[in-house]
Amino acid sequence: MKEHLIELIEQNKFAQVKNTIVQMNEVDIATFLEELERPKLLMVFRLLPKEIAADVFSYFSYEMQAYIVESITDKETESILDLLFLDDVVALIEEVPSNVVKKVLKNTDLERRALINQFLQYPVDSAGSIMTVEYVDLKASMTVKEALYHIKKTGVDKATINTCYVTDSRRILEGVISIRKLILSDDDEIVGELMDRQFIYAHTLEDRESTAALFKKYDLLSIPVVDNEKRLVGIVTIDDIVDIVDLETTEDMQIMAAMQPSEEAYLKTSVWNLSKQRIMWLIILMLTAILAGSIIKKYNNLLESALILSTFIPMLMATGGNSGAQSSTLVIRGLALGEIETKDVLKVIWKELRVGLLVGFALSVVNFLRLLLISRVDLMIALAVCFSLYCTVVLAKLIGGFLPILARKLKLDPAIMAGPLITTIVDVCSLTIFFNISSKLLNI
Amino acid sequence: MKEHLIELIEQNKFAQVKNTIVQMNEVDIATFLEELERPKLLMVFRLLPKEIAADVFSYFSYEMQAYIVESITDKETESILDLLFLDDVVALIEEVPSNVVKKVLKNTDLERRALINQFLQYPVDSAGSIMTVEYVDLKASMTVKEALYHIKKTGVDKATINTCYVTDSRRILEGVISIRKLILSDDDEIVGELMDRQFIYAHTLEDRESTAALFKKYDLLSIPVVDNEKRLVGIVTIDDIVDIVDLETTEDMQIMAAMQPSEEAYLKTSVWNLSKQRIMWLIILMLTAILAGSIIKKYNNLLESALILSTFIPMLMATGGNSGAQSSTLVIRGLALGEIETKDVLKVIWKELRVGLLVGFALSVVNFLRLLLISRVDLMIALAVCFSLYCTVVLAKLIGGFLPILARKLKLDPAIMAGPLITTIVDVCSLTIFFNISSKLLNI
Repeated sequence: MKEHLIELIEQNKFAQVKNTIVQMNEVDIATFLEELERPKLLMVFRLLPKEIAADVFSYFSYEMQAYIVESITDKETESILDLLFLDDVVALIEEVPSNVVKKVLKNTDLERRALINQFLQYPVDSAGSIMTVEYVDLKASMTVKEALYHIKKTGVDKATINTCYVTDSRRILEGVISIRKLILSDDDEIVGELMDRQFIYAHTLEDRESTAALFKKYDLLSIPVVDNEKRLVGIVTIDDIVDIVDLETTEDMQIMAAMQPSEEAYLKTSVWNLSKQRIMWLIILMLTAILAGSIIKKYNNLLESALILSTFIPMLMATGGNSGAQSSTLVIRGLALGEIETKDVLKVIWKELRVGLLVGFALSVVNFLRLLLISRVDLMIALAVCFSLYCTVVLAKLIGGFLPILARKLKLDPAIMAGPLITTIVDVCSLTIFFNISSKLLNI
Repeated sequence: MKEHLIELIEQNKFAQVKNTIVQMNEVDIATFLEELERPKLLMVFRLLPKEIAADVFSYFSYEMQAYIVESITDKETESILDLLFLDDVVALIEEVPSNVVKKVLKNTDLERRALINQFLQYPVDSAGSIMTVEYVDLKASMTVKEALYHIKKTGVDKATINTCYVTDSRRILEGVISIRKLILSDDDEIVGELMDRQFIYAHTLEDRESTAALFKKYDLLSIPVVDNEKRLVGIVTIDDIVDIVDLETTEDMQIMAAMQPSEEAYLKTSVWNLSKQRIMWLIILMLTAILAGSIIKKYNNLLESALILSTFIPMLMATGGNSGAQSSTLVIRGLALGEIETKDVLKVIWKELRVGLLVGFALSVVNFLRLLLISRVDLMIALAVCFSLYCTVVLAKLIGGFLPILARKLKLDPAIMAGPLITTIVDVCSLTIFFNISSKLLNI
């Protein structure tokens, strides 16, 4: 299909191109167009009927959206913008260069421009910043028949008709009713009696991550967003929430790998920005790791007498770090999903203690056998190494389990207490343990 | 509200309990009941009208579902099971003890039991294993009016009516039509002419992760699942997909932290299972770390002459590991989201090379100044340390960027190429680099 289309475009058979392309899914049209050369792209884009064009436009990357707006006429811009949902226009304005923003605003009517201005004020990461205004608005006094007629007349412009919102004359949200309930009810029933008054809603300033949590908890398809007076100002739909969940996960993973979070896709991020994102934490962790070095320095006498001890340092540090990172990852993820709360701190510590004792024992035994049977080191050295390993693993598990919960308690992001930071902390502990135990057991 | 309810329950005012509780959201009822003592819980659960009871039941944990089924009569079990969607029954059967399974099957009619058996055959992680059968089935020859009437008559038992599926007499899926399209169209229009024939669908054996990717790409609310003959066998709805996305992320994070993935919630996992999940990778990584130790051993002569070098080992290893983990995390996540593909390997390497050169330079300069100005070490030693650091960071970035893509190419999970494994590999490299550069520069 794709090859066939490209052929038709090469041959300038635009009528056929149009007939073929309008049968495709809008997402696929957008993907296809983004791969074309730009003048061709524009030519094909202009063939699309305006409803499809607007849909396709909303699936373009911001870069492509900016290019399109720059390249088409004011009239074309207006017709596309008219059909876009407000959240897409707001996102566009936030992401494109100022000359494009100007052209967008110039071709938006006054009323909508006021709304855009209002929406741009909501803090990033708030429910307000991701909502849109195209919801179905019903009145409690309507009959089902009237409501369905209203939906039929206005539904074409709505982001969703699957859930409808019932407001009073002051726009205060009174209830929520699904299209399913309307269809399954009799024509003369009253919306006010059918609607759900115990509905779930979000405040405009609610964090987008906790808004997503509401979707997950209550299996929602959309959520009404209200202001301080409980007036309905917009809705957030599940498709945006799915994207938010991915963004938040990416953010968590980046923080867990000791980076400042960024929402840009890797391949589209400049080398400069990638470096900036990484350098700060690397410096902090590098300077902290010097602490571990200073412990080695402190015990240089011990090392001089038994240099073989130095060969166990990488194994001890790695195993300690990995043990701690495992625990902290599980706890950070549990906190993010709401499966673990700060009040569970003792449960977590008790669990990690037992896991540490069990895992540490297994690792020490494996290592002990290897040292005696394969490396054939001195018994006392093997004992010193394995006992240190045991203590390190137990301690690492406790630290890894505890610090993320402490971070949450201190209103920090638990994700910072992941592998890299835990490893650095555990390194210091494991070296201290190792040198102390060794000097005791070896009498140095 | 919660306190008030508990009070009413204490006072055995069950009529009032019932009136209060039925106004709550089913999810909240389930959460509330799970916190009650079990005999009380059962008493209150039995007060619920059967539709609400079935809904609440579907939000219980499997443990609680098993307890309920065990405690209620056959007749009650049957009435709840009748109202559950098939995917919930299948999930229940997969998770509860065999005596409960027996009771469930005993109270399910023959036809449904056959379906359950069929569904249990689909591989875990396939679209077939998470689909349900309660979809709206239309015929292409229906008028809109007939279709809406059909939905009105059958919709109450469906998992969703927002998207309807059009099949022919052999159950082959011909098209998809949204409830919105039906409502916005005129009564006498024909479904076959309105429906979308270029619909997105999944095969029963399609991986659930790639099914989720289809939802994200096409902003779907549900997807039809077909067999080899393109017969419609079920649908998957977005609420399950949202859970799948979380599960897959958790799995990725666990693998990235060197654990075998588990779907159980942390606090509900036994110490034994938590330990099993972690021990294998810890042993593998511990044994690999011995390689790094053997490099130190090989250069013991060098260390004997300049023991101060040993104090830089933790800093070098930590910085190398962290640098590599940053890169691998970004690439693993990019691969998981489809933002990076294996064909981008050269782009990634080229990006990481430049980031490594930039970041490595910054880190080396900071470290060089610290060594000269604060630690006041010998110039040649400072040079050896910082040049090694520079090479290590660049190499770590390249390894961290490359290995996840290699893993994907080899059809392995890229997530195994995360922090722990990368760190172990980088450790060996950084020590080799460090000792070689030091022995050259210090002439030992």
